[in-house]
Amino acid sequence: MSEAAARLFVAADLAAGAAVEVSPEQGHYLRNVLRLGAGEPVSLFNGRDGEFLARIAELGKRRCTLAVEAQTRPQHAEPDLWLLFAPVKRARIDYLVEKAAELGVGQLLPVRTERTIVERINPERLQANAVEAAEQTERLTVPTVHPLRPLPAVLADWPPGRVLVVCDERGTAPAIVEVLQSLAVEAEGFPAAGVAVLIGPEGGFTETELDGFGNLPFVKPVGLGPRVLRADTAALAALAVVQAVLGDWHQTRRR
Amino acid sequence: MSEAAARLFVAADLAAGAAVEVSPEQGHYLRNVLRLGAGEPVSLFNGRDGEFLARIAELGKRRCTLAVEAQTRPQHAEPDLWLLFAPVKRARIDYLVEKAAELGVGQLLPVRTERTIVERINPERLQANAVEAAEQTERLTVPTVHPLRPLPAVLADWPPGRVLVVCDERGTAPAIVEVLQSLAVEAEGFPAAGVAVLIGPEGGFTETELDGFGNLPFVKPVGLGPRVLRADTAALAALAVVQAVLGDWHQTRRR
Repeated sequence: MSEAAARLFVAADLAAGAAVEVSPEQGHYLRNVLRLGAGEPVSLFNGRDGEFLARIAELGKRRCTLAVEAQTRPQHAEPDLWLLFAPVKRARIDYLVEKAAELGVGQLLPVRTERTIVERINPERLQANAVEAAEQTERLTVPTVHPLRPLPAVLADWPPGRVLVVCDERGTAPAIVEVLQSLAVEAEGFPAAGVAVLIGPEGGFTETELDGFGNLPFVKPVGLGPRVLRADTAALAALAVVQAVLGDWHQTRRR
Repeated sequence: MSEAAARLFVAADLAAGAAVEVSPEQGHYLRNVLRLGAGEPVSLFNGRDGEFLARIAELGKRRCTLAVEAQTRPQHAEPDLWLLFAPVKRARIDYLVEKAAELGVGQLLPVRTERTIVERINPERLQANAVEAAEQTERLTVPTVHPLRPLPAVLADWPPGRVLVVCDERGTAPAIVEVLQSLAVEAEGFPAAGVAVLIGPEGGFTETELDGFGNLPFVKPVGLGPRVLRADTAALAALAVVQAVLGDWHQTRRR
């Protein structure tokens, strides 16, 4: 992130010469946590215009504005990767969202499966965690956290062409690397209509759910090896392998 | 784990007909957490003799013994995988150890690098976490957590032939999948002398450290893509990709 002492996601349009007001929470962070002052450099991105260097213009208790200077990185395409996950308990769901943001997930879709125990989530808190994690990764977008929906509803209006990689905890599905490599060959790279990873709850999917997946043409069941993984571990492991084999881990870092 | 309500790691030899006394903590877990009683089935493993079904013989406040019945799985070879990591803060190190155990790491070596901030670890607590995670994964071994040592000391007596995959956070090293695939071709599978993954501290390795790695014939630097990952995310991601590409994720689960 070049010389900047912080990197913030903002909603405003970014262009050289613009003045951008950041949120009171971001202002508090710059002033009281990082103890920055006027003139100090901060990196800004909004998911559309690339990354810009900005300098703190005003940093008061109520209001923090930044003067946008040069673009440091242009916006570029990122692998279109979703994560569908059955919510897990609080500390683990925070961790899962943070890690998914670091691993480049674009959309986080909490889904209620037959054996899902956690019935409520706080999408606002998860969204804030996702933004914070994205700010620290140097990615140029932030993931969107969706409200909790029943899995059948999400599958019923599934976008045409998007591949759904289902982590099948019975351990009998083909190895994830083989499935992803054949996808890469078919699509000549990352599938244009996108990829999603689905992880079940701690108790796993029911037989009915697993049978149902078998009837969906967009589902690719995959195995994650001989050990039993927790739901959050399975999610992170599958996302890492997707990015490594199919996604943008073949690229070096753009500076 | 078949019909068993719990799965425990024990030090004792296991064979049909043996009587095994478990630790007071394990007895407490069976009696007060799971609320099991005499006659109920528990799965046991010791890292050497495979997995056995046992039944609770005596479950008192002071003493819990189990009667070992049939072997449910024979011991089998597992990928010989180590993780070298600079310690991170408490919640994250617990999480890291748990995940490494789930991902099949055999030896956990905390190392002090030039920019390591966390100066102390509690190997006993980490070892207990590692055992608990291993019990839940159906693996037949438990990882060993070593005391914190300076990285140069660990590298100075490096075992001959073991590959050290260094996650190079500068983002310019070859992609991890390519490096692992060429290792797999060379070794015709998982390298016989084993593999280790090294993750630096949050602040990264110093230039001196990175230059030093370049002189070590067993080091393979790898890149984990264009995003900046936290140390714990990088560790889990690298371990998942190692198991998926090089390790035992091509196997289905053995029951």
